[in-house]
Formats: sequence, structure tokens, C-alpha cells
Amino acid sequence: MKYVYSFNEGNKEMKNILGGKGANLAEMTKLNLPVPEGFTITTEACLSYYHNEGSIKKEIVAEILEHLKKLEQSTGKTFGHGKRPLLLSVRSGSPISMPGMMDTILNLGLNEESVKTLIDLTQNKRFVYDSYRRFIMMYADVVKGYDRNVFELKLEEYKKRKNVKKDTELDEIDLENLSKEYLKIYESQNGSPFPSDPTRQLLEAISAVFRSWNNDRAIYYRKMNNIPDNLGTAVNIQSMVFGNIGSNSGSGVAFTRNPSTGEKKLYGEYLMNAQGEDVVAGIRTPLSIDSLYQTNPTLFKQFEYYANILETHYKDMQDMEFTIEEGKLYMLQTRNGKRTPEAALKIAVDMVHENLITKKEAILRLTPKELSSILHPTFIMHDKTAITKGIPASPGAAVGQIYFTAKDVIDAKKQGIKAILVRTETSPEDIEGMHHAEGILTIRGGMTSHAAVVARGMGVCCVSGCENIIADETTKTLQFPNNQILKEGQTISLNGTTGEVFLGSIPLKESLDNDNLLEFLNWTDEFKTIEVRANADTEKDAITAKKLGASGIGLCRTEHMFFDTSRIFSFRKMILSVSLEERVKYLQELLPYQREDFYKLFKTVAPEAVVIRYLDPPLHEFLPKTLEEKEQLARSLNINMDTMEERISSLKEFNPMMGHRGCRLCITYPEIAIMQTKAIIEACILLLQENIAIKPEIMIPLTVDQKEFEVVKKIVDDTANKIMRDHQVKIEYVVGTMIELPRACVLADKIAESAEFFSFGTNDLTQLTYGFSRDDSGKFLEEYKNKNIIENDPFKTIDQNGVGSLMKVAISIAKKVRPNISLGVCGEHAGDEQSIIFCKEIGLHYVSCSPYRIPAAKLVSAQIALK
Amino acid sequence: MKYVYSFNEGNKEMKNILGGKGANLAEMTKLNLPVPEGFTITTEACLSYYHNEGSIKKEIVAEILEHLKKLEQSTGKTFGHGKRPLLLSVRSGSPISMPGMMDTILNLGLNEESVKTLIDLTQNKRFVYDSYRRFIMMYADVVKGYDRNVFELKLEEYKKRKNVKKDTELDEIDLENLSKEYLKIYESQNGSPFPSDPTRQLLEAISAVFRSWNNDRAIYYRKMNNIPDNLGTAVNIQSMVFGNIGSNSGSGVAFTRNPSTGEKKLYGEYLMNAQGEDVVAGIRTPLSIDSLYQTNPTLFKQFEYYANILETHYKDMQDMEFTIEEGKLYMLQTRNGKRTPEAALKIAVDMVHENLITKKEAILRLTPKELSSILHPTFIMHDKTAITKGIPASPGAAVGQIYFTAKDVIDAKKQGIKAILVRTETSPEDIEGMHHAEGILTIRGGMTSHAAVVARGMGVCCVSGCENIIADETTKTLQFPNNQILKEGQTISLNGTTGEVFLGSIPLKESLDNDNLLEFLNWTDEFKTIEVRANADTEKDAITAKKLGASGIGLCRTEHMFFDTSRIFSFRKMILSVSLEERVKYLQELLPYQREDFYKLFKTVAPEAVVIRYLDPPLHEFLPKTLEEKEQLARSLNINMDTMEERISSLKEFNPMMGHRGCRLCITYPEIAIMQTKAIIEACILLLQENIAIKPEIMIPLTVDQKEFEVVKKIVDDTANKIMRDHQVKIEYVVGTMIELPRACVLADKIAESAEFFSFGTNDLTQLTYGFSRDDSGKFLEEYKNKNIIENDPFKTIDQNGVGSLMKVAISIAKKVRPNISLGVCGEHAGDEQSIIFCKEIGLHYVSCSPYRIPAAKLVSAQIALK
Repeated sequence: MKYVYSFNEGNKEMKNILGGKGANLAEMTKLNLPVPEGFTITTEACLSYYHNEGSIKKEIVAEILEHLKKLEQSTGKTFGHGKRPLLLSVRSGSPISMPGMMDTILNLGLNEESVKTLIDLTQNKRFVYDSYRRFIMMYADVVKGYDRNVFELKLEEYKKRKNVKKDTELDEIDLENLSKEYLKIYESQNGSPFPSDPTRQLLEAISAVFRSWNNDRAIYYRKMNNIPDNLGTAVNIQSMVFGNIGSNSGSGVAFTRNPSTGEKKLYGEYLMNAQGEDVVAGIRTPLSIDSLYQTNPTLFKQFEYYANILETHYKDMQDMEFTIEEGKLYMLQTRNGKRTPEAALKIAVDMVHENLITKKEAILRLTPKELSSILHPTFIMHDKTAITKGIPASPGAAVGQIYFTAKDVIDAKKQGIKAILVRTETSPEDIEGMHHAEGILTIRGGMTSHAAVVARGMGVCCVSGCENIIADETTKTLQFPNNQILKEGQTISLNGTTGEVFLGSIPLKESLDNDNLLEFLNWTDEFKTIEVRANADTEKDAITAKKLGASGIGLCRTEHMFFDTSRIFSFRKMILSVSLEERVKYLQELLPYQREDFYKLFKTVAPEAVVIRYLDPPLHEFLPKTLEEKEQLARSLNINMDTMEERISSLKEFNPMMGHRGCRLCITYPEIAIMQTKAIIEACILLLQENIAIKPEIMIPLTVDQKEFEVVKKIVDDTANKIMRDHQVKIEYVVGTMIELPRACVLADKIAESAEFFSFGTNDLTQLTYGFSRDDSGKFLEEYKNKNIIENDPFKTIDQNGVGSLMKVAISIAKKVRPNISLGVCGEHAGDEQSIIFCKEIGLHYVSCSPYRIPAAKLVSAQIALK
Repeated sequence: MKYVYSFNEGNKEMKNILGGKGANLAEMTKLNLPVPEGFTITTEACLSYYHNEGSIKKEIVAEILEHLKKLEQSTGKTFGHGKRPLLLSVRSGSPISMPGMMDTILNLGLNEESVKTLIDLTQNKRFVYDSYRRFIMMYADVVKGYDRNVFELKLEEYKKRKNVKKDTELDEIDLENLSKEYLKIYESQNGSPFPSDPTRQLLEAISAVFRSWNNDRAIYYRKMNNIPDNLGTAVNIQSMVFGNIGSNSGSGVAFTRNPSTGEKKLYGEYLMNAQGEDVVAGIRTPLSIDSLYQTNPTLFKQFEYYANILETHYKDMQDMEFTIEEGKLYMLQTRNGKRTPEAALKIAVDMVHENLITKKEAILRLTPKELSSILHPTFIMHDKTAITKGIPASPGAAVGQIYFTAKDVIDAKKQGIKAILVRTETSPEDIEGMHHAEGILTIRGGMTSHAAVVARGMGVCCVSGCENIIADETTKTLQFPNNQILKEGQTISLNGTTGEVFLGSIPLKESLDNDNLLEFLNWTDEFKTIEVRANADTEKDAITAKKLGASGIGLCRTEHMFFDTSRIFSFRKMILSVSLEERVKYLQELLPYQREDFYKLFKTVAPEAVVIRYLDPPLHEFLPKTLEEKEQLARSLNINMDTMEERISSLKEFNPMMGHRGCRLCITYPEIAIMQTKAIIEACILLLQENIAIKPEIMIPLTVDQKEFEVVKKIVDDTANKIMRDHQVKIEYVVGTMIELPRACVLADKIAESAEFFSFGTNDLTQLTYGFSRDDSGKFLEEYKNKNIIENDPFKTIDQNGVGSLMKVAISIAKKVRPNISLGVCGEHAGDEQSIIFCKEIGLHYVSCSPYRIPAAKLVSAQIALK
């Protein structure tokens, strides 16, 4: 087993054993870039260290020393002593980047002897003591674990005494004294003096880096990022170059493109007369890389040249570290740079245009999460601290004044006020208010509460389940955990991507109408494996969906059409009627609205498919809440308030989710299904007169049984046939069903005999398979996650074992009866990466998600083919 | 094909073609009982009549006439004319008894000629005209469909004119005139005169009986009783014997044993000088069969002798018709008699003791429904009309004064008042009141609403879902559909077996502590195929269960133990606590109670098994409702009322059925499971000191996942191990789970790796598989039944296609992992016949039902083996 590789022995593919940094140092060496020579001790040596009870095996020590000897030979220097003393940097580097989590020691090899020799050689006493004091502190900190602050305080003391602010204002005498004081501090803590033997320094430093793999912050970082604990870190030993020799030396970091915007232009910063650590430490303000062009154009061009080589070679934006030693440029590190989602998209699209990468590669460069977040506004950089944190229910950021009812939000909007809707929980009648709000904050409910689902559907930022706030809707106040109280009209900021809530206002970056995105989404179509349809209830939603490239509408929820102020009154009269005649009369009032809704929707989407789901929620969701509304309604129905309250209370249910809803309404009130069928067929007839053909897919919700489905289908067919006869036209349509109850899954073969398509309603299917009410499960799901009982929120990612196995049963038995049955999914899962992959695996033809989740879904659909 | 059988050609096994009556006439003929001669036209002739467009085929007519000729020869009479005219009765008789549904014509063959001859022969003009007027009316009614009332009115007119009350007070002249008037009425309606040709009379009468198979009331009866429509009726042609010749003639009906009590003693009634129809018509009051012994002991003994032959031959209680013609006894019909459940049980047990039937036969004689009803009080015969009708939620009958709260019922009980609890719906806190009520009436809820389930569990009569009553709990009034209003304290009667509600009081027959039942139940054990355990939460339940022969307790619902007034206060303090310390403190208060509960329960049931389910319902079910309770609780918790209301409201759930309940409570509040485990194990230790060993089966409710189960099991095991260590004893116990969520079914193999037994909770499994909330589905399930979408209420009878198929999956995969896993069911279905058969089929080891359903379940368990 080989444990140590010279930089010229490795390459960028060897990340697993050399770590990311080591592999890239080797690759840069191969590319003949000016990389200070060195070698890498492998991750396997690190694992061996742990297996060997925390000590480096003899044969590995031997291999290290052998490589050290070669390094001495090729640099013509000797480690830590002799005429030309060799100094080293010792840096960690794990296979998966964990920036800042592990340790680094620079200037290794300094001791009394080499310090003297170097002063003689460089005639730069200040530089040598500057390096020495840095080394002593790093060694004490990293190898021995002594408190770094003791050293920092001493440095501060020197600066104070001399009345200066910057380290660079200390002179050689100061630094010499400081170094001596550091040695004393070390000795007083350690009991014996600072080690002067360079080899001992080196081996201790290597051990310390190995150990840093298991320091607390590294373990936490790995846990947070799902990085396995058994990878280990490599250690890179490199001959030092010095940015702190003087004013023609320096250190810097730079990106080949702007990591924030993606603009193709070097972006970075540097400091002269500094070592790398100073650039990030923020002691002095670094200069923009652009200014290097003015002060040293040759060097700048040289760097630009190297950067270009690296980007072309790696075919990705690079994040590089460099040092200038007395006018000579050295490359110390390169890696693929982190970037914002916007930048990631622009870079991927630009690189395709530059023929640097293929469309396939571009598609694989972005994550669904990145693509989603591009559509939402975000905060600019800020340093505010959140006052509390809820569930990140709908991504994006929002700033506005708080209001406690949908009506107040609408009124505020009319006055040009940006409003945040605050509710204990939202209900369908809040929809108009939610539409007008910048963001939504709820006290109750999780990722799939009403507020969350509707907000994501609308692309409105939402923080839900903020259980430690008290919202008092009567006094219109919010009370935070610190007892601070906000009144109506005061301003808060919400981060729907993190769940954070801030007092006051944080400036926003608005989302772009992004050409890169649209072009990118077009590319995904070339590789798509599963169609992506949209959940869209309005013409506006449909336009957005079409623009983002949805293959039609997979779910139009007709109930949302009734909440509009112009309709809700008729709808309420209908549901509170006690006779068929009355109900039919009020449905007749609704028919023109519903017909127009469908007309607009169909016209927008044609010739793509539109799946229309019939009225689904329990009727009580539509009931009036305020006394005023009730009185108005009672007058209009010509009943007294007692009767009104009785009728309202008769619609109350214990478990509305499992109550009188879905196609159960079609069975008990066929007149509703008749009206909806009329609206659909009549809309199709109007379009036919404009030569627009559409084949609506009528979807019956909550089916439990074949017979039940057939009863409803007959209502639809009879109604449609009558209208078609009356108009002497033929409209093509299909009637299918949602599969959202466990019983429908196990009887899917029977149901498929009658139903022409299936769409899995995985929200309800998840609720019923688990017996988890999505509005109530927030209370215990958190505990389930903490106790590792469940890994993923099943309302976010399809539970493949339970829910998924019911879906598989349904598909397999249904296909035996109707081999070409169209199969889709229209739950919230349709926007989730893992779930989409699962849907493709089990043979679904499309996923249907809210418009703002289409980009991510299309990306996943294409990535499935490319991964 | 042979279409006509003489009575001496058939036997009792030939019911399918001869009908019940025909087959039994043939059998009696075979037994040499005095049966007037005759023949039977088969059901196939009836079917042929329908296939032949409503006319009798020539070959069948020929066969009938041939048998008629033989009948003339053997009786020495000629049909409808000649010196000794033969008269006939024509009676229907289908393979399955449909009493009174189809038609009969007596005295057929009378015409001017035979009337004269008969007067000469009998010298009894009155008898002949009595027979003639009866015949004309029956023929007009049955064959022609003329309104019988026209004839009846004419008869009344005669009696009025003569100022008499009884038909028998009319003399021969009256009857002769009446006959002539009848002939006129007939002719005026028919246009042509009454047919005098006897053969024509006969064939028309036969056709009419065939047609009566499809009269409205017969069709309705078949629908109600699930009798196939394609059986057809046979027609029995029999030479007339006359009970109306004079005072030494008569007709009667009798049972071999008392059909109401089962007492072994002839039971029946008769009328002298009457035809059979008069006995049932109620014109004169019939005499008890006992009085025949006084007036004519020889005849009585002869009849008793025949009755005994028949019962011994049929091995069942017989229902017989007889006629005495001038002192000679004729047997006209026998069949197995209908009887009350009490009589059925006593007769079956007695016949085993008499060695008339075997235990197997006895077990097959009773239906589960009969056996169930024996335990409940019933109304005596009454003629009250129900004021409204709800769902028959828990069988039995109850009379009492109405009260609107559980507390008022309890107070009334203390004053010795029999109370009926009236609630819009009941909740667990009403349990104590339900226990003290004679019966329960609810406005909402179906067969498996809280009220229904608890009432059946307690054996208390309950009518639920009486939606057309308005119960106002504030004014304490009930308003009925006819707007009649009842106040607190007024009396109603409930029939929980039919769902009827009556105003005022109806006398009750109390259920017996029935030795026959206990003996009978013992016999079922010899043939049992599946064990029957009891759902029992209290010592009292357990005693009942043990007495009725339950094989242990299959479900002890621990939550019911907390509703007792002595405990609910501590329990409420516990659930409203916000800190672990507080909760533990209040749980500590509950521990002694719970330990004592288990101690008593175990002691009663040992050495049989006891399955204890851990706390299951959502906590808000336990919350205080009245202001007084809340204030008391707030004082005790030292919090103000705002805080109290906040805590109460934080427990509110949208869909509590799918909320924070079941083992989710064990995950979030492990301290509750710890307390329950302590109570169980400590109770076992106490019993061990008395040398009573019990192996409790600890059942975790609402499991969705193996990991979840393991977390809870660990809490149980850790707690138990600690106590056992502390006491230095070893208590055997097992930990299993309910399978009541669809996810648990499809992941049953994983769960079975950790769970030691399964009990299917088919109530919740049905709710979740269908997405039907059992508290809300009443609203639409009725409509589903009306539209034939569902056949059976899935909460009453297991839905084998949907729920059943999930159960089968669970069993099949679980057995692969744990082949000997104990499998039971503890939902409401455990008391339903079809469901028990299904449970046996799919391999369950036991069903666990409420104590009052044990007899029926044990019966089914045995019948499975015997059928």
C-alpha cells in the first residue's frame, strides 16, 4: 500500500485517497502551473492512524520522510536547517470539501537555527519573525490545542503599546519580541520548550491534522451535510512560498467567474505583504482583483492565463488561492467554486454557449433546489438575527406590514401597502388574501398545511408552524418568544427558504424574468423521462405554467374557483339550501363563472391536456365565518339566524378530511357534478367555434369503489351527451379518477375497468396510509425525526415503503386490465426530486406540480436520463 | 318432465319442486296422518307458466286433469258435479316460506248444480251457502283482482240489517241471498256471469296462484328476505274438508311447543264451525287448544299424538293447521314453526336433553342474531307506533325519563329514576352517565359512532343518528318531526334492535340469567374454530365475559379507566402540564388506580390471556368542558384562565382520528407508557405473591413503522426490567401491536420482526382504507346503500375486497418472518357473523368483541366447523 504521493504522481480523479485539495494540486502540477512542490499523505494513512490507536505507523513515517528527502533534493533546500532551509505548509484536504472545518499549519520548519539562516538569506528580519510568530501560534493551537486567544491578546498588547492598528505596522523588533514571548507562553503551558526538531514538528502537525477529522465542528458539519464519517482526510505537505516577505509579495483568492451573478469575469481579492490567512481574517480590507491589473498588469494577465487554463481544463468555474512571492506568482489551490443558484444557472448556460460543456453536462450541473430558488426573491446579504424560526413552508423572502385577516390584507394592498398575512392557520377562504400578500406567516401547520400548499402553489413566501409566537387575532397583535409584541401594520421580514422571521425590513433581490432559465428548461425537454404538468386553477397560473414549459395541466382544482368574492355568495347559498330546487337555482348562478374559468384555462393551455378535478373539499370549508356574512346570507336565503346556525352546524364534521367530500358530494348532490360537467362541455363548445379543440380529462376525486365511480361517470356522461345532442356537436373527453385512498389502490384493477386514467393523489394517500393528518402531524413528526423513526417528512418525499408499495400494487393490477392507462401524480410530492425519480421508476407518465416547482421537476425528469 | 305429483308421490326433501307446503303434505301422507287427498303442481310448472307468456302449457293441463281424475276415483266423488261433488282447495307454496304473501282459494268446484246436490247430501243449506259465498269472494279477489271490500261491505250490510255481530249469526237464507248478491256483483264487474265450469274455475285459480308469485307484496318480501326471484311457487290442490259444517266441525292452528317461551306443551287456538281463514281473521275470538281437551279429550289426544309424530319426525317444533269435519280430525299443513330467540334457544337445548337432536344440530338451529338478542331486554307485544326511527345502534329495549347530560343521568339514578341519556353526540366523558342510563339516544352518529360502540360494549340499548329530532341541550328539550316537544324528565321508550323511538312507556321483558344459554355456549366450545376473547375494560366487564365463556380479554382499553371521576382530574392535570416533571407528578397520582385496575382484571381472568392496549385516543378527548371544571383545574395547576384556554386550544386538532394519538403519545410523552408499564408489571407482582401467574400481552396502538414500535417497546422493556430487578422477580410478558393503519399492513413483515403479536384494529383500518370517518360517514353512507354502491356497512361487516385484502397481505408477509405469530382482531367486526367467518378463513386465531356479543361470536365459531 502506497500512503504518500508526490504532486507529480497524482491527478484530479484521485480525490478519494488524496482529498480534493491534494488531487487538484497534483492536477495543477500536471498542467505545469506554478505550484510549489510537495506531496500528499493519503486518506488511508489517516484511517490507519485511527486504527493504530492514534499514532502514525512506522512504514508510513518512513514513506513520508522519503518524500521529504526527495522534496529537499528537488528544491535544493534542507528541511528546517542548513544553508537554504526548507519550510513547509501542512494542510488538510478531505475527499468531500468541508471548508474551514479542519486544520492547517504554515511555516513549519522554523526554529532558532532556520530563523537565523533565513534572516541572513533574505535580509528581511521582519518577514522571518512575522512567519515565526504565526507558526508558533498555529502549532500551539492545532497540535497542542492551547487557547489561541492568549496569543492574540499578546499581539493586541503589542499593537496597543505601540498605538498602531495593523499587524503590518509592527516592526521587526516587535515581531522578534513577540515571537520570544510566544515561545515562553508555549513553554509555560507545555512544561517543556517549543520543539526545534523540524521532523518532530512535521509528524506532530500531521497527527494533529488527522485528529482534526474528528473535531466537534467537523463531525457536526458531516452530519449536517450527510458526509460519511469513514472517509478520513488527506494531508498536503507543500514547500512554503511567502506572501509576507514585503510589499512585492502577497496572497489572494479568486473565482474565474462571479460566484454571485455568474458574470464571466475574474472575481476575487488579495492583500500584499500577507499570508493567505490574512485575506479571510478581515484584519485588513483586501483589494479587488481588478486593482492588481492596475498595479501589476503582467502578473494579472499571468493569473488570468492560469485561471483560464484551469477553467477550461476543469470545465467549471474555479475557486483559486494564490501567493505572490517577491513578484513571482504561485498557485496554491483550485477547486470548483461555490455559487448562488442564479450564478450556477448563468454559468451553465454560458458554458454551453462557449462550447465548454454540453447541454447534458449543464443539466447535471444544477440541483432541483437551486433551480427552484431562482424563481423566488431573496434577501440581500444581511447580518440580522432571526427573532424566531418556523417551518420553511414556501421558499423565497418577503418583507411587509403584518395584517391578521385576509380582508385587511386586501384593503392594505389597495392602499399600496405591502402586507404579510398572519394567521393562526389559513383556510380556503383566505385564498384571495394570500394572493395579495407578500408573504404568509402561520402559527400552526407544517410543510403541507393549507397555508404551505397554497403558498407554494402561488409561489408566495410562507413560514408556517411558528408555534412559539402567539397571534391574537382579536387584538391584532403578535407576541414573540422574547415577549416583544408587534401590532397590526408593523413590519417583519420572512425567509421562506429557511423559516426565519425577522423584525423590521431586510432589502430584497427580486427574481428575474430569467432568459437563462427558459433556455435551460427547453434543453431539459430533450432528455425528459417523465412529463411535467402543472397544478393550475386560474388563467394566471396556466400562463405561468405554459411559460415554464409544463406539458399541460395535471390538476385544476375547481373549488378554488368558488372562493372569488363574486362567486362565494352563490356557492354558500347553494350549500346551505335544503332542497334540490334551491341548490339547482344557485348552481345555475355559478355556471357562467365556471364556464368562463374553463374557457380561459383551456384556451391558454390548448392543445395540451387539462385535467379537471371535480369539487373536492368538505362543504363546510366554504361556510361564512363572520356574523355579518351570516346575516347577509340568512336574509338572502330568507331564513332566520337560528336556522342559519343550525344548517352551518349540520355541516360540521369531526374528521373533515375523511368526511363528506370528494366524489361523495357527487353521489349525494349529483346536481353539483352536473353543473361542473355543463361548464366544461359548454366551454369546449365555445372553443370549438374558434377552431380550438381540447380534450378535457375529467377527474373524479376520492374514489373508493368501481360502482361509486360508475355512478359518477354516468352523471357526467348523461349530462355531456345531452348538451352535445342539443348543440349537435361531439366533444371528446375522458373520465378518470384520483387514486388517493388505500382502498382504491388495492381495488385499482376493478376501478380501471371503468376509469380511463389515474392520477395518484399522494397527499391524501400519505395521510390515510399513515393515519397522519397533515394539519395535525406537525405536533409529533418533529419528534419522529429527532428519534430517527422517520428519515424524511412523508408529505415532502414519497414514503416508498408504505405509500409507494400501495402505488405499485395499484399500477400493477390496473395495467392488467387497461395496459395503456394514463398514470400521473398530482400531490405535493410531484415537485420533490426523490419522489419524481420514484414516480418514473414505478411507471408513471407524468407528475403535476405547482407552477413554481415546474423548473425543478423538469430538471429531475431530464437528470434521471443522464445520471 | 313431470309437473304434477300426488301427495303420495312426494316427500319432505322435495321442497324445491313441491314447495314447502306440498313437500310437507306429501310427507304427512307418507306418515299415514289423516291428510285430505290431493296433488301438487310443481314450481317448474310455475316457471313454465311465465316462460309461456302467462298461460299453462297444454301438456301440464293434461297432467293436472289426469291427477284430478285419479283424485275423483280415489275419493269416489266427481269434481263440481254428480251425486257426490268433489270440492277443492287451491293453495300456493313456495320452496322458501313466504307466509301470507301469495293466494289461496277454498271451496273450488261450487256452482248452482253442486250447491244443490250438496244441500241434498248434507241437509245443511247454511253450510253450503256459507261455503259458496266464501268461494265467490275469494275467486273474484284472487282470480279477477276485484276489490274484496265490495263483498265485505255487503256482508256487513246483512249483519247490520239483522242487527247481529258474528257471521255465524246469519242464517241459511241470509247466506243464500248473500251468495246471490255476490254472483251479481261479480257479473256486474266482469260483464259475464260467474264461471260454473269447475275445470275452468280450477285452471283459472291455478294461473292466479302462479301470478301471485309476482304480486307486489311477494316481490317486496323476497327483496327484504334475500329470496331469489326465480324459484316460483308450487300449487297444492287438495280435496276440501269443512270446518264450517256445524258445531262439531272446526279449524285451528297449533305449535308443538310454545313459540314464545319454548315450553314443551301444545300451544294453539281453534274455532268451531269455521274455515281456517276465520281463525286468523280475528272476527271471532279463537279458543285456546287447551280447551279442546275439556270439550273433546279424544280429539285432543289424537291431535297431540299426531303433533308428537310430526315433531319427532321433523326433529323440530312444528306449526300445524288442522280441520275437524263433523268430528273427524284432518291435518292440513305442517312446517317448522317460527319462534322467539328465547324459545329457539330453549327448544334447541331441550331437544338435545330429549335426545331428539345432537349438539351439532342444536348449534346449527340458532342464528347469531337470535343469540345476541337473548341478552337484551325486549318490549312485550304492543301496538304503539314509533314517533321516529334512528339507527339501531345497540340492541335491546329501554324505557326511561330523558336527561340531557351525563351528570343529570347520574343524579337521576341516585334518586332511583330510570333515565335515558339524550345527547347530540356522546363523548368519552359521558361514559359514566352512559353506564347509569337505561338507554341512549343520540342525534348524530352511526353504527360505529362513539355512542354505538360504547353502548354495545356495555350492553346498553342505544338508538343513534336520529337526525330528524332536534335536541336542545340548553333548554333541555327534544323536538320531534311532528313538532311535538318533550322536556327533561318525560318518558320515552327506545328499541335498540329496530331503531324505533316511542313516546311514553312500553312494558319490558327483562333478559334472564339464562342457564340454557350458558349450557348452549359450553357446547359451542366443542366445535370452536376460532377463539373468542372479550373487549373488557373493567372488572365488571371481565366477570361478564368470563361467565359467557370468553377465552380471555383481547382488548382492554386503558383510556376508559381514566374517565372515572376519581381519576379524570389527575389525568387532566397531566395532559395540561407543560413540563415533564409536572406530567410525571400527575401520572404518579394515577399509578395506584391503574395498578389496581389491572390487578382486579388479571385476577378475574387468570390464567386466560389479557391484552392491554396503551393509551390510544387524542388527549383533547379528556379535556374539561364546563367553565366550572376549567376553573377548578386552573386553580389546581396554578395558572390563570387565559393560559388554561390556550393550553386547551393547543390540543385541538383538525382531524383527531389521524392526529396525535395511539403510540404517537408514547413517542412524545414516554412517561405515560412508563406509568402504564409500571402499573401492569406491579399488578403482576402483587398477583405472583398470591400465586396467580398472568402473562400480560402489552399492545401498542396505531403503529406505522418498525422503528416506531421498537422505540416504544424499548420504553416498555426498560421500565419492566427495572421493576423486575428492583423486586427480584421475573414476570413473563409479550409486546405486540395493533395493525390498524394501511401502512402497518404493507409493512407487517418488518413490524413482525419486532412485534410478538398482532391484533387487527379493523375499525380504524376501515376508516383509513376507505377514508371514511365513522363519525361523519352517516351523512352519505345511507345514500351509498340506496344507490347500491355498497352492500354492507363496512363498519359492521368487514369489507373483504378492500380492508380484507390489506389484512391478507399483512398476514402473509408477517408469517414469513414470524410463522407462529398470534393474530387477532379487536374491532367492532369481531361480533359480526360474516366478518368472523372471514377472520377464520384468513387465519386469525381469535376475535375479540364486547361481552354482549360473545354468545353470537362463539356460535359462529362453532357453526363454521359444522356448516
